[in-house]
Amino acid sequence: MHPLISKDSKWVLQEDGTSKETIVQNETLFALSNGHFGTRGSLEETSRTPDYSYSESTLVNAFYDSEPIEYGEWAYGYAKNHQTIIPVPNGKKLTLTLDGETFDLETGSTTDHKRMLDLEKAVLTRTFTWTNTQDKSVDVKIERFVSYDYPELLVQKVWVTPHEDGSELELTAELDDLKEMGQTKGHQDSHDPRKKVLKERRFDSTDLESEEHTLMHITPHSTDLNLIVGATNALSDASAAYHRDGNTETWKVETRKSQTVSLERWVAYGFIFTDESEKEEQSRQVDDLLSKVKEEGYDSVKEKHLDYMKTFWSTSDIQIDGDDTLQTGLRFNLFHLHQAAGRDGLTNMSAKGLTGEGYEGHYFWDTEMYMLPFFIYTQPEIAKQLLRYRYSILPQARERAREMAIDNGALFAWRTINGEEASPYYPAGTAQIHINADIAHAVHTYLQATDDTEFGMNEGLEILIETARFYETYGHYDELRDGAFVLNEVTGPDEYTAIVNNNFYTNLLAKHNLNYAIEWVEKALDEKNEDGQAVLEKVAFEKAELDAWKKAADKMFLPYDEKQQLTMQDDSFFHKKVWDFDNTPEENYPLLLNYHPLTIYGHQVNKQADTVLAQFLFSTEFSQEQKERDYNYYEAITTHDSSLSRSVFGMMASDIGDLEKAYDYFMDTALMDITNMQGNTNDGVHTANMGGTWMSIVYGFGGLRMANGTLHFSPKLPKQWNKLSFTIQFKGRTLQVTIKPEGSEYTLLEGEPLEINHFGEKKVIQ
Amino acid sequence: MHPLISKDSKWVLQEDGTSKETIVQNETLFALSNGHFGTRGSLEETSRTPDYSYSESTLVNAFYDSEPIEYGEWAYGYAKNHQTIIPVPNGKKLTLTLDGETFDLETGSTTDHKRMLDLEKAVLTRTFTWTNTQDKSVDVKIERFVSYDYPELLVQKVWVTPHEDGSELELTAELDDLKEMGQTKGHQDSHDPRKKVLKERRFDSTDLESEEHTLMHITPHSTDLNLIVGATNALSDASAAYHRDGNTETWKVETRKSQTVSLERWVAYGFIFTDESEKEEQSRQVDDLLSKVKEEGYDSVKEKHLDYMKTFWSTSDIQIDGDDTLQTGLRFNLFHLHQAAGRDGLTNMSAKGLTGEGYEGHYFWDTEMYMLPFFIYTQPEIAKQLLRYRYSILPQARERAREMAIDNGALFAWRTINGEEASPYYPAGTAQIHINADIAHAVHTYLQATDDTEFGMNEGLEILIETARFYETYGHYDELRDGAFVLNEVTGPDEYTAIVNNNFYTNLLAKHNLNYAIEWVEKALDEKNEDGQAVLEKVAFEKAELDAWKKAADKMFLPYDEKQQLTMQDDSFFHKKVWDFDNTPEENYPLLLNYHPLTIYGHQVNKQADTVLAQFLFSTEFSQEQKERDYNYYEAITTHDSSLSRSVFGMMASDIGDLEKAYDYFMDTALMDITNMQGNTNDGVHTANMGGTWMSIVYGFGGLRMANGTLHFSPKLPKQWNKLSFTIQFKGRTLQVTIKPEGSEYTLLEGEPLEINHFGEKKVIQ
Repeated sequence: MHPLISKDSKWVLQEDGTSKETIVQNETLFALSNGHFGTRGSLEETSRTPDYSYSESTLVNAFYDSEPIEYGEWAYGYAKNHQTIIPVPNGKKLTLTLDGETFDLETGSTTDHKRMLDLEKAVLTRTFTWTNTQDKSVDVKIERFVSYDYPELLVQKVWVTPHEDGSELELTAELDDLKEMGQTKGHQDSHDPRKKVLKERRFDSTDLESEEHTLMHITPHSTDLNLIVGATNALSDASAAYHRDGNTETWKVETRKSQTVSLERWVAYGFIFTDESEKEEQSRQVDDLLSKVKEEGYDSVKEKHLDYMKTFWSTSDIQIDGDDTLQTGLRFNLFHLHQAAGRDGLTNMSAKGLTGEGYEGHYFWDTEMYMLPFFIYTQPEIAKQLLRYRYSILPQARERAREMAIDNGALFAWRTINGEEASPYYPAGTAQIHINADIAHAVHTYLQATDDTEFGMNEGLEILIETARFYETYGHYDELRDGAFVLNEVTGPDEYTAIVNNNFYTNLLAKHNLNYAIEWVEKALDEKNEDGQAVLEKVAFEKAELDAWKKAADKMFLPYDEKQQLTMQDDSFFHKKVWDFDNTPEENYPLLLNYHPLTIYGHQVNKQADTVLAQFLFSTEFSQEQKERDYNYYEAITTHDSSLSRSVFGMMASDIGDLEKAYDYFMDTALMDITNMQGNTNDGVHTANMGGTWMSIVYGFGGLRMANGTLHFSPKLPKQWNKLSFTIQFKGRTLQVTIKPEGSEYTLLEGEPLEINHFGEKKVIQ
Repeated sequence: MHPLISKDSKWVLQEDGTSKETIVQNETLFALSNGHFGTRGSLEETSRTPDYSYSESTLVNAFYDSEPIEYGEWAYGYAKNHQTIIPVPNGKKLTLTLDGETFDLETGSTTDHKRMLDLEKAVLTRTFTWTNTQDKSVDVKIERFVSYDYPELLVQKVWVTPHEDGSELELTAELDDLKEMGQTKGHQDSHDPRKKVLKERRFDSTDLESEEHTLMHITPHSTDLNLIVGATNALSDASAAYHRDGNTETWKVETRKSQTVSLERWVAYGFIFTDESEKEEQSRQVDDLLSKVKEEGYDSVKEKHLDYMKTFWSTSDIQIDGDDTLQTGLRFNLFHLHQAAGRDGLTNMSAKGLTGEGYEGHYFWDTEMYMLPFFIYTQPEIAKQLLRYRYSILPQARERAREMAIDNGALFAWRTINGEEASPYYPAGTAQIHINADIAHAVHTYLQATDDTEFGMNEGLEILIETARFYETYGHYDELRDGAFVLNEVTGPDEYTAIVNNNFYTNLLAKHNLNYAIEWVEKALDEKNEDGQAVLEKVAFEKAELDAWKKAADKMFLPYDEKQQLTMQDDSFFHKKVWDFDNTPEENYPLLLNYHPLTIYGHQVNKQADTVLAQFLFSTEFSQEQKERDYNYYEAITTHDSSLSRSVFGMMASDIGDLEKAYDYFMDTALMDITNMQGNTNDGVHTANMGGTWMSIVYGFGGLRMANGTLHFSPKLPKQWNKLSFTIQFKGRTLQVTIKPEGSEYTLLEGEPLEINHFGEKKVIQ
């Protein structure tokens, strides 16, 4: 059993002792977030012992700084600016001093040091006993949580219980504005594009007036974003000597044996605003919030938080009987997924959530293809907000299409925060035009699962039209292919193959994108549909477009090798050499760090699922034999150097009936971050892989597919488990699916009766 | 007639007046060089009036500084460092002061200002009369030349003839170590990859001891190169008051009406050395050289220089009867070509020669494909030295092949000075693996034209083997193409199409490269051939390689569209949309500055000749009908945004019999730099285009081809001309070819009788 997995509870990750490595490693795993902001699981006093930390960042979703991208050689249309999420003032810094000696893990002796992340409650608890060099001891307990009820709020409480009378106990709480950024070992300069740890403070700060709280206005060096950060504290012992120096508050008390002194601490990270004139209004709101919660008190705010989490788990938990480690690990994944999602329609989910600075806090296609399914089927309101973010950046996507000389429609940025392209390497950036269809597919899945025609007839419709327009304009009819519609010069999901013609995945998804647009435009053409009509007018829709989309979709070229009866990843894929796996030493993986892109691109080798992903997404369109042949071919040449790969192969293994393999893939990835499998968990969790584990359960073992608005299941239980159970939301219903060796049960927990399809047979669930 | 073209001489470029724009423009055209170093045609006093200059650089071939290339996103195997040729101390700086007032074009009044570049003599002359604000006047004449006899030497002489008695005339000569780099308008930051003008001094300098000269040791900030620069002067008037302050020498005399005072000035740029301990020895050599030439005197050194130039022209001139402007323009091109070539076997010819910092002084395939033919057929000794440079960087090329995961052979850098890849953009850099075959082709052409088996059995053999090995290892046999040998993931000459499979040009040249290697290895296998045997042993040649090369060459895939009966530029070229030329406004050219690379790559549009270039190089292998069809197809989609394009289309127009078009293309490019046709002559001349004009005459109108060691001619005279005559060196002969409307004459100026082929018929020239 992994040391983090608790023997006593299937809801807890537990860390014992004070091993430097373990504590550093767990900083990412113990990160807490609510989609608006997140804070890594660093120790409160880590500025004193930087070796116990990799990065103690607190990150506000979409609060980024910018600088021009430097190119060895510039070309027209290149992404202009880096967008880099930046650490904001640290509200976790707490100092405890006993008779003049300040606590840290390298001073005196610390015993019974334990940290515990309670997934059910979303609370991180730390307990230990510290004995200073003068042999004076205190028991310490610290709780920390990030509120969902008050999205601005980081809540902390520390309890100190002295072993002796008569010592001087000093507690200091500071809102650290990072004038000196923490520097730790292992922060060497790295070329690895997946890493990004800032070494310099990237914002300016001004202290603001407040009657009783600390308030600070911060703004990044090079973007027009603004944020108010505030803090307030309440000590249990009113008689304490209190001193305030700027953003630092200190209390001194004389200890009384076994008499606990506690400090409640509230830190607020306001919402981002761009108009500096709002500063006063925004600071007043943060000020008021701090007064309000301080008055409400720790216990009450925590209770609300626990209620919220209870509701979350009631619709989102997955239960596995037969593997306790996995049970905890899965909950850990759902927990992180849930806390990573922006909920305001203006922010999204970064590749690392808010647990680290890896990938600069950018949003990728991961959201739509790996993470949204979980939200669509368990938290559809959050799914909608994530899609509304895409709607909010449509203007930038239109602009980008124009830059790419496409005079119609929109092209979403491959990686971005503010909607502008931030990928400095276009062959694995802008060339991935499948992002458009990925988003359209997510919109369509959301609409099918929710019947949310209000969204469909507004934001959804506009997204579907603009993405379809892009493809229709981008592609052309290739005479040499009997007039098939082709999409050239693109990169598919597999980033070990770039700049090809007719990537199967891209073309298949674009075809569906065109059809989605047709479907929703046809609904909108109904004159009674006022919202839809308004959108059509807004985007200057012309009826001829429908025919053009139909023609392009019908004639979409899908490369296939008749001789081998194999789907071809792109026009030229089978013309390349197969990678020499036999002569590639283990240490040369991931290939991207050890071979020139041209070397990799010139071979048949996959970083991740590409054709197999397409067939998974539209699995009902392909025969089992075809899927199996393709699966076997592509599996043999896939390195899984991307964390997005294994879950897809696992689900398709379920699909083609290889349950053993499906299980192996699933187990390989279910604990990816807990076991630091990719070796870079320090930089943040792999949220897409976490979404992949949810999909592996529900799409893989549950066999869920949606076709024509109906849920299809083909549940299979790996022999290693006794029972598997999950819950999904569908068109207002809550449906529980329980898979046992002897068969499956469908229970309607809420809502109207529902017709589903079970292994091809209709069933009505009442 | 262009204002620069002299009416009086077909050997002279002449500039009249003091227009700022004209003077700035001519800085590049009036640059003087000898392959070892070059110095732009800037005014002697330009530091006082920087608006009259774009860049007054003096550049030493291969003397470069380095800094790491910044990438927005790094990947394995990317070129690591910029290599940037850097201006070295300026030996042209001269100051003339009359009664305390210093001459420049903005002070007092300057009349009769004339500059004249005499191409026959390779001397730049400046004359003017200056009247200061006190109405005192002097006539000034300045001559400048760069010696071929003493490759380190810049020679200048100034004559000052006063109009009045009794003024104080002061002359100051300075070896300016560029502590303050000249800054002029128009030096804004530019993203244009073709520009590079340094704004900071990039070397450290130390003054060295010398009894009578100025001596300086310089070394770039980040490379281990060293150079000794020296200067010495001699004033005609021994009675002058002399003052020396560091590197500045000043003479004062009292003027006597009509009594000319002259100053001879010698500046030496030593040879580059890397071992700092050689500093003393090298500085002694420069010191001695300065003493020697000063003693020898201006007239004598100049006379030698004129002799040298006479010899050059006797073997290299092209004479055209019927267009005087063109006659001068052509000589201008030959002049610049000749002075651009490194002659020491360790340096080469940069894309701008030594006339400017454009393209950072890098060597490209231009040398082999555009410039070497001129040298092979007129100055074969220089051609050999240029090829020896390639031999000198074979170790770096082997290393590069290893980095590209090719375990056999060598891959030459796409752009480089020191042999390491310096192209920061691999799709139009490292992917252009045709550079190997370009070099091999030049080696083979040189060997055929010279019978230089000594070179062939040593450097030549090794280059041919290592380049052939690379292709054989890089490619593979594609089952889906019936086992044809394919080269995937490459970029051909046309940089508007990148990262394709089976670029026709690349494959055809690689095929020949393999055959060249076979031919010369078979010669070397003769045991009596000691040199060849040594090379085979050195490179661990195995006989099985011969079969492998043969098989690859025989099975080389050459893409062809049977339906249209067209040669296909690469596997996917005809599957792309044709560029929408009709809707591309004039100001959107060159496309590379106005469209994203993906936009350009996704279309059928050529920057330059690609398939047509391949067919030109091996024109005897294709039927006239095929060449004509291909020509017409590709011409219609070519923008000629590269200066390497038009000359090739012109020559192929001759080949397919369209003499009118051939003439038009030729006339378009023959005066490219004089007319600043590409708009960037400021950054340096277009040496490859100059080579192209020579090829247009000899290969185009002369119809010269070499096949199996024999010269084939098919001469055609454009109707606009009365006569065309050129001279070539071939296997020790000097052959003059004269083309007249009534027919052609071949005259053997030197050497044994020679069998040639004239329009398919054998002829023996005695």
